[in-house]
Amino acid sequence: MIKKAVLIILDGVGDRPANELEGKTPLQYANTPNLDKIAKKSTTGLMDPIAPGIRAGSDTSHMNILGYDPYKHYSGRGPFEAAGLDMELEPGDIAFRCNFATVDENMVVKDRRAGRIKEGTHELASALNGMQIEDVQIFVKEGVEHRAALVLRGPGLSPHVSDADPHETGKKVQEVVALEPGAEKTARILNEFVRRSYDILSTHEINREREAQGKLPANILLPRGAGMAPHLKKFEALHEMRGACVVGTPLIRGICKMAGITPIDVPGATGGYDTDMMAKMRAVLDALQEFDFVLVNIKAPDIAGHDSRPRKKVEVIERIDRAVGYLFEHLPDDVVVVITADHSTPCSVGDHSGDPVPVMLYAPDARADEGGFDEISAARGALRIRGSDLMNIIKNASNRAHKFGA
Amino acid sequence: MIKKAVLIILDGVGDRPANELEGKTPLQYANTPNLDKIAKKSTTGLMDPIAPGIRAGSDTSHMNILGYDPYKHYSGRGPFEAAGLDMELEPGDIAFRCNFATVDENMVVKDRRAGRIKEGTHELASALNGMQIEDVQIFVKEGVEHRAALVLRGPGLSPHVSDADPHETGKKVQEVVALEPGAEKTARILNEFVRRSYDILSTHEINREREAQGKLPANILLPRGAGMAPHLKKFEALHEMRGACVVGTPLIRGICKMAGITPIDVPGATGGYDTDMMAKMRAVLDALQEFDFVLVNIKAPDIAGHDSRPRKKVEVIERIDRAVGYLFEHLPDDVVVVITADHSTPCSVGDHSGDPVPVMLYAPDARADEGGFDEISAARGALRIRGSDLMNIIKNASNRAHKFGA
Repeated sequence: MIKKAVLIILDGVGDRPANELEGKTPLQYANTPNLDKIAKKSTTGLMDPIAPGIRAGSDTSHMNILGYDPYKHYSGRGPFEAAGLDMELEPGDIAFRCNFATVDENMVVKDRRAGRIKEGTHELASALNGMQIEDVQIFVKEGVEHRAALVLRGPGLSPHVSDADPHETGKKVQEVVALEPGAEKTARILNEFVRRSYDILSTHEINREREAQGKLPANILLPRGAGMAPHLKKFEALHEMRGACVVGTPLIRGICKMAGITPIDVPGATGGYDTDMMAKMRAVLDALQEFDFVLVNIKAPDIAGHDSRPRKKVEVIERIDRAVGYLFEHLPDDVVVVITADHSTPCSVGDHSGDPVPVMLYAPDARADEGGFDEISAARGALRIRGSDLMNIIKNASNRAHKFGA
Repeated sequence: MIKKAVLIILDGVGDRPANELEGKTPLQYANTPNLDKIAKKSTTGLMDPIAPGIRAGSDTSHMNILGYDPYKHYSGRGPFEAAGLDMELEPGDIAFRCNFATVDENMVVKDRRAGRIKEGTHELASALNGMQIEDVQIFVKEGVEHRAALVLRGPGLSPHVSDADPHETGKKVQEVVALEPGAEKTARILNEFVRRSYDILSTHEINREREAQGKLPANILLPRGAGMAPHLKKFEALHEMRGACVVGTPLIRGICKMAGITPIDVPGATGGYDTDMMAKMRAVLDALQEFDFVLVNIKAPDIAGHDSRPRKKVEVIERIDRAVGYLFEHLPDDVVVVITADHSTPCSVGDHSGDPVPVMLYAPDARADEGGFDEISAARGALRIRGSDLMNIIKNASNRAHKFGA
């Protein structure tokens, strides 16, 4: 019987032993009755999101896990950020993440987030959107707070250009340079765009009002993270499953959109510590009625890792455990569930590491083994896989895999 | 000291937990004192016959295990079936499995097996063998009962054609069509061959006699499973071991023949439940006197999996255990033995699955580990390998591997 599948990615949940946690990892230390119970019925083990020792990004890891080789399709995060904001991209477009920022008249950055601007960015982005420089069309769209995305469309463009964003206050906006021969045109257009963004934004009514209220003006748009939009085969064509996703972060949402996985937006799913995990699980259960495959990403453990807060990570994991328990209470019989992470974000590192992550495959007829769902006990389990194996394993467990041979 | 090697493939023995077996797999449930004793002296673990989650066929898996990448060399089972019937193939030949079948005058299939015809197929095949259509030579040979194989030899042929066999009674013989541009000639020749087979067979004396006796005539030959004969480097050239095989099924026998592994035919080795396993093990012991490497395939566990009979699979495994015990009792000292499967055939699935299989490497100086020879306890062992790793591991254990570097 063909089954449906849920893939739960606990973003950055993998960790290393922490002194604050009696030498245990957050997953070992946390009280997780539900995850423990599921592990007892699951095939468990360890997964290298890309390959052993490779420090995966969330984007490259999600791509690899979903069946899109990041070494082939990934040149930078820009296109996925733009797609995550529902911008329409065409293969070959060059896209950037951007910040609305505040600069002085010498182009020195006073605030990379324009006073954490919250309102008016739609009008500011619209004032830049639709511009043409040489033969290149330019699209701009605002994101949450000071964030935005920029898309360049035209002939002869390259993703191999430096950032305009100097990444520090007190520094001048950087002249964009070509990082490879052939990228000069893109650098030239981007520099012209940044200059024009200052001309247009610094005189914009919204900014005049902000200044009148004593707020910093969002008087420039600073691009970074150039990437070329890839052509991704549609998820349904690749895996013969209709896919949906419940993800809070625009980057992962963008990957899903470009892969033809339908995003389901959940009010209260913020992508932060305070995200409403129960609402996400309810959305997963709803989505299972219509879709064959549902990806859910919970970002909070990654944030705790970046913040180097092991106790916070434990707390986040215990909330996840309750949400997973709720999901399993209401799960239909014919569903396969994989729980894993896209990478480790050890608190002791404060960033992604190349350590493997625990993985478990739950199915009614799974080969339950002796492993658990943490970095240490998972080593007792059967699985030693890479992210690129996971969809094949899911299709096998849900009786959807085609036989190769006779 | 250089050692000899035996590779025992328990076809489809991997399984999943079964309710009928108290939640155990057949390998866990079966009473296997000999396999258990061997496991205690072996390096154990899990093997993905091709890659994690990939549902291997017996053919593609045996190829991968023997050192022939099926993604490179496999286009369909036809050539291996033909080789298994001792037909001589040349690289580039297009070959098919066939059934002698019964059709009515409207080409509607009345019986896909021509009343399970047992006698006279040699004469019927001979009546078709040696035919020429356009510039293509045609070879036909009978197999067991209604089975036969067909080989097309000539310029411009392709394996990318559909089956003439409709795979169901009550349906018309299918017009063969090209599945890719360039395959039109092959489709045209195959259609002409099927028509001629009807013309020749429907008036053949053997069939007139069958009809006179009230039996269904074998009045058509229906091809399916097109594949192009690959050029396989000889096993001895690849591995520097002279190889023999003790295998009952024509498909695996054909792979061995094409790889230059000498088949040793054992009376009583039927490839069915009733196969004489002791006779096979005696044949292995004999073959070890002349050959460096002996492959033995025992098909019965796969049949029990396809039949969804977990208790039958347990019984088959217990018979295998006795045969393996016999082998080890008589095994010379200088022999390495690997016991594994070509794929899992879980009774709950009734077909091959992409689950890994247990594997154990016995050698007098093997690193014995804590694993056992079943799907669960094997996870405690050292090995997590793919089928394509196995010959290298065998060559290493038998002190035949060349050092790579200094």
